[in-house]
Parts: sequence; C-alpha cells; structure tokens
Amino acid sequence: MTVYPVVPGHEIVGMVTEVGSKVEKFKIGDKVGVGCLVGSCRSCESCTNDLENYCPKQILTYGLPYFDGTRTYGGYSDHMVADEHFVLRWPENLPLDTGAPLLCAGITTYSPLRYFGLDKPGVKVGVVGLGGLGHVAVKMAKAFGAEVTVFSTTANKKQEALEGLKADRFIVSQDPEQMQSAASSLDGIIDTVSATHPIAPLLSVLKPHGKLVLVGAPEKPLELSAFSLIMGRKIVAGSAIGGLKETQEMLDFAAKHGVTADIEVIPIDYVNTAMDRILKSDVRYRFVIDVANSLKAP
Amino acid sequence: MTVYPVVPGHEIVGMVTEVGSKVEKFKIGDKVGVGCLVGSCRSCESCTNDLENYCPKQILTYGLPYFDGTRTYGGYSDHMVADEHFVLRWPENLPLDTGAPLLCAGITTYSPLRYFGLDKPGVKVGVVGLGGLGHVAVKMAKAFGAEVTVFSTTANKKQEALEGLKADRFIVSQDPEQMQSAASSLDGIIDTVSATHPIAPLLSVLKPHGKLVLVGAPEKPLELSAFSLIMGRKIVAGSAIGGLKETQEMLDFAAKHGVTADIEVIPIDYVNTAMDRILKSDVRYRFVIDVANSLKAP
Repeated sequence: MTVYPVVPGHEIVGMVTEVGSKVEKFKIGDKVGVGCLVGSCRSCESCTNDLENYCPKQILTYGLPYFDGTRTYGGYSDHMVADEHFVLRWPENLPLDTGAPLLCAGITTYSPLRYFGLDKPGVKVGVVGLGGLGHVAVKMAKAFGAEVTVFSTTANKKQEALEGLKADRFIVSQDPEQMQSAASSLDGIIDTVSATHPIAPLLSVLKPHGKLVLVGAPEKPLELSAFSLIMGRKIVAGSAIGGLKETQEMLDFAAKHGVTADIEVIPIDYVNTAMDRILKSDVRYRFVIDVANSLKAP
Repeated sequence: MTVYPVVPGHEIVGMVTEVGSKVEKFKIGDKVGVGCLVGSCRSCESCTNDLENYCPKQILTYGLPYFDGTRTYGGYSDHMVADEHFVLRWPENLPLDTGAPLLCAGITTYSPLRYFGLDKPGVKVGVVGLGGLGHVAVKMAKAFGAEVTVFSTTANKKQEALEGLKADRFIVSQDPEQMQSAASSLDGIIDTVSATHPIAPLLSVLKPHGKLVLVGAPEKPLELSAFSLIMGRKIVAGSAIGGLKETQEMLDFAAKHGVTADIEVIPIDYVNTAMDRILKSDVRYRFVIDVANSLKAP
C-alpha cells in the first residue's frame, strides 16, 4: 500500500500567471479562486445540471488521484494548475483574504439556503453552531433578508452573535426553557455541527413543513424520531458545497452584499500552531494563510 | 383518572340521514365519507392553508375530547354526527367498500407523492412495505404514471406486487445484491413500515436529491447517517394524512383513475378475529366492516 501525504487547502485565491492554449475564461493577471473541487465527469446527470458537487466521480482539491494519475495537493502552495471549469472569477470588490473562506464555508451555507427556499426576506432561519461555517451562514442568511436565530451549546458567543454578526436571536440549545420558547418558530435550520448531537430539539423548533439541513457530518449516526417528522411534515436533509455555477453566483452575491468571513491571517510556518488552536476552537473563525508573502521556494 | 374506551374506525363511508340548519355542502341522501379528522382550530396557519392535518389542535376521529366535552368514538357505529367541513363528498363511481380505506391509506400516500413531486409520469418511486398503506401507495404512484419499485423484506409478495398491483420492479430489501442493483435509481420512496428498520439501505437507492418519506412511525428512533444525506443532498421527511381539500382531491383522483383498496368485507361481530389476523399480517390488505348489514341497535 502506498501512503500519500495529504496536503490540505481548498479555499484558494490568487492570480492567473499562465493559461493553456484552449483556455477561454481567463487571462494572465485575472484574480481567481479554486474551491473544493478540481474535477468531475462532466457528463452525468449531476454534472450536466451544474451540480458537479454531486457527481460520483468528483475529484476533491486535495488527497485524491487526478485524471492523469497524479495526486491533488490542495492550496498550501505558491502555484497551482487547474482546469478552467473549476476556477472561479474573483469579483473585483471582494477582498482576497476575507473572501477566500467563502469557497467552502460560503457555498456550503449559501447553496442549502437557496435550494431549500430559505433565501427570502422575512424567512425565519436558525443556524446551529457558530464556527467557520456557522458565522458565514448567519451573514448569508442576513444578506437574504432572513430573520436569524443562532443556537449554541453555551452562552459564550451570545454577544458576538447578536452584535458582531447581527443575528436577531440567540438561544442556548442546552437550555430546555429557551428551546421551548422557540418551539415551532423556524422555517429552516442550517446545522453546521460535526460532533454527534441530538436533533430532536432542533426539529421541535421548526414550524410545520420546516427543514433541518445538515452540513456538518457527525461520524456516528444521529437518532431520528420518525414521529417528530411525520407530525409536521418536516424534513431532515443534507447538503454538500455547491456546483461551479452556483459557487460563482455565491461569490458575486457575497461581493454585492459585503459578505465575508472573519479571519486571522497567518504565515505558512504558523500552520502547526494553527492546527492546535483549531482543535481548541481558538479561532474567530477561519485561519487564512498568506502563502505569497510567507512561502518561498527553497 | 377517568379511563375512556377507545372505539376505532377512521375510514368511514355512508349516507347523509339528517342535516343541520346551517349545512351548505350536503343534503339528505348524499354519499359521504369521514376520515381521520373531525375537528381543528380553523384559524392557525395550517388550517388557513387547508392543512388541518398539521393543526396543533386537530381532533382525531376517535379517542379524543371533542369541542363540546364529549369524546370522539370513531366509525364502528350505525350513525355518526360530524361538522360538514370534515365530511367528504363521495364520488359517484367510487365503490363504498373498496373506496373507504382511501380516507386514511389513500390520503396518507397521495399527499406525500404530490408534495414531494413524485406525482409525474416517469418519476421513479419506491414503496417500502406492502400492507394497507403500501399497496395503495403502489396504485396511487402507478396512477400518476410513475415507475414503481416495491421493497419487501422477503420474496413472498413478489408475484402479488408485480402481477396484482402492476409494480414495475420488486426488490427484497434484505438481499444486499438486489439492493446494490438498485443503487441511486429512485427519485423518492414512500416508506410505510412502522416497525423499526434500517434506513441507510433505502437512502442508498435514492438518486442525488432523492426523498425518503416516512409515513409509518416506528416507536424507537431510527439511525440516521448525516453523511449519507449530505453526499447526495438527500432528504428524509415525514408526512401525515392530508388536509380536507386534498383528501377530496384524492377521492376524485381515485374515482377517475380507478384506484381502490384490496379489501375483505366482514360483519361487525368478526372484529376481534380480524384484530388477531391483523397482528399476524393475515389480510390482503384491509378489513372493511359492513356496519349497515351487521350492526343492529340492541
């Protein structure tokens, strides 16, 4: 068995330095981004419907074999080669650093808000978990005009949620009284938590026909009460990033509405420390590596 | 604590014998039906959207207190009084006996087929469990023009499903090879099983964006893998009967397309034997009590 190193990084922005002879979308000097995908079959039902993210042959930006037999090595690099289909135009007024995390965190939250009809003014949206995905979910939902409730296990992030992110309501999900006060109040929830957690309380704060969308993937199965779905025609769904067309749409939307991620810029030689801090949830909310100014070829 | 007897029966058909002075929809002699609901608040968001079945104050046809303090006693009776809003017009060419079970089994399967977009020609629909609900689900889906796959734990009902009910495909859900052959092939599934059962194999036979709709309610929580939802933007949903407007629409649809239940007509004094046989799944597929010809006032 061959063991390959995994080099991560799938929220990548930069400048075009070279183009192949058949490239049509980009020219040298263009600002561009690459997200979680660098390949797909381009011919299945998902691909032909601009949903490359659900293509069974999709190639992720790091850790997988590419068509030519090489591996994909992510964005911790000063150069990258990518098929133009999987490269995004970077909107002129979207900052490179605070915009970069949108290539995963942005599209992962934007896509389900759109698909599940949670993208309209006045719609009542819950966001569970306030981390890399969650804080962007709040900003996206607010940009759509939704009324946003943040659910967190403790009250620690209350001020941040209400004042920093302009959420409309903050609920401590482990407080049964606060949960009871929110019963049947939401049209949908974006659940960003990837630790195993109970979803019955979340289903109880949905209105009839409400939608609980999981975008974090707990390792162990969740407990699902059929009865709690049936009695209100409720839905539990999952959603994974978005297709290239929608990712471009998301970037343009973010640029127009000033949606960016809260970040801490670090040099490349800080990554191991950053990993330790991530495990302690000690980052508000994404680290962004300034590769250009800190990674030099040996 | 007062203990009330529960007298069941919520698929009830008969003739109007008397009308109140404010009744507008019906006159003496009309053929009518009463389903699972006899009351609701009539003013909540669900009620005003013709979804009385999701009204938190809904009153079921048996075993619950009615507005006037009496109990609701179901359909094992030669007379019944009901608010006209909860009474259905019986289509002229729909048989009373084989049509009666549609008032629960029919609407329970028709409503999710409609709501979840599984009501179009060529759509690929799975039906899990071939009992009272399941056999009607197959007929409804076929009437919509869907291509229907029946899932059953054993091969016992294969001939019945394919020849009797005109299903297009039959799969033994406990046979991994047969399940594998159906991988990613369905747009949606109506799961009528009320015993605890694994849903992961059912999610695997859904296409991306496919919908697993639970209409049977297992007592214990089901195990739900978030990952299996996320990787294909799949949905697990629940659905409970339907509103009065949709129930009328369902009856008219059934009459037009000749959708009826497979039944065994019994006299009222056979009910205890029938209950024993139901527990042994020894009925194809619903018992219908001929009250008029077997129940005499003492």
